[in-house]
Amino acid sequence: MDKAEVDERLAADSYPITELPLCQLRLMNDTRYPWLLLIPRRRGVSEVFDLDEADQQQLWREASRIGRAFKAMIGADKLNLASLGNVVPQLHVHLVLRREGDAAWPGPVWGQGSPRPYDLDELAAMRDRVLALVEGLALEAQES
Amino acid sequence: MDKAEVDERLAADSYPITELPLCQLRLMNDTRYPWLLLIPRRRGVSEVFDLDEADQQQLWREASRIGRAFKAMIGADKLNLASLGNVVPQLHVHLVLRREGDAAWPGPVWGQGSPRPYDLDELAAMRDRVLALVEGLALEAQES
Repeated sequence: MDKAEVDERLAADSYPITELPLCQLRLMNDTRYPWLLLIPRRRGVSEVFDLDEADQQQLWREASRIGRAFKAMIGADKLNLASLGNVVPQLHVHLVLRREGDAAWPGPVWGQGSPRPYDLDELAAMRDRVLALVEGLALEAQES
Repeated sequence: MDKAEVDERLAADSYPITELPLCQLRLMNDTRYPWLLLIPRRRGVSEVFDLDEADQQQLWREASRIGRAFKAMIGADKLNLASLGNVVPQLHVHLVLRREGDAAWPGPVWGQGSPRPYDLDELAAMRDRVLALVEGLALEAQES
């Protein structure tokens, strides 16, 4: 996905990790929560139901498999999975790992306080961990 | 779905509308936002990825089709679709219609202010509208 195809606010708040079959996978630059974004490579799409049925299935396949593996890797209490889009209309799905007692617990993470950015070493380390995780998953539609 | 199978907090905050192929459909008792809940009739399930693949596809089919029709019926600006579960572990998916300038806009609706309950006439009217909407959709897996 070309950088220009990602909404500039999403691009400013997150780092690209890799391209999945449908989505660009990004890491939100906020150490308060392990937080991934899935952005389908489709133009002019704002709602999940704007995608065709096959793309919807693929989006949820990527979200579900990465969400499960990410939760297991980090050891969180709950996955928050959401498509909101009140601020940024470009369709994006949040995968946020929550722990009891985290900065917003038990409330939602959006709009609460200020992000605490990763330093560059932490960022590279988390990116490598997520990349390794994704490589172990079968994300292509025909492999499901 | 037996009343006893719905978490008592979800049951206290929402009204049953109908049973879909997978989920019980409920209306959140909060006139600030047109807000539906989908609760899969599966025991011991907290995360979307705890469902098997067929159930996951059916959950998103129900969420997507109802979300699209509900948004068109009400005329909202954005659908917020989310599975959070920080407070109530029983798997439930929120379909919240948002309008610019609504009580929480552009923030998330969860944990913001106090619900404004429907009166009984409003409740019956909204329930009838949503029931009519659902009857016009093809929600069975084999019809997709």
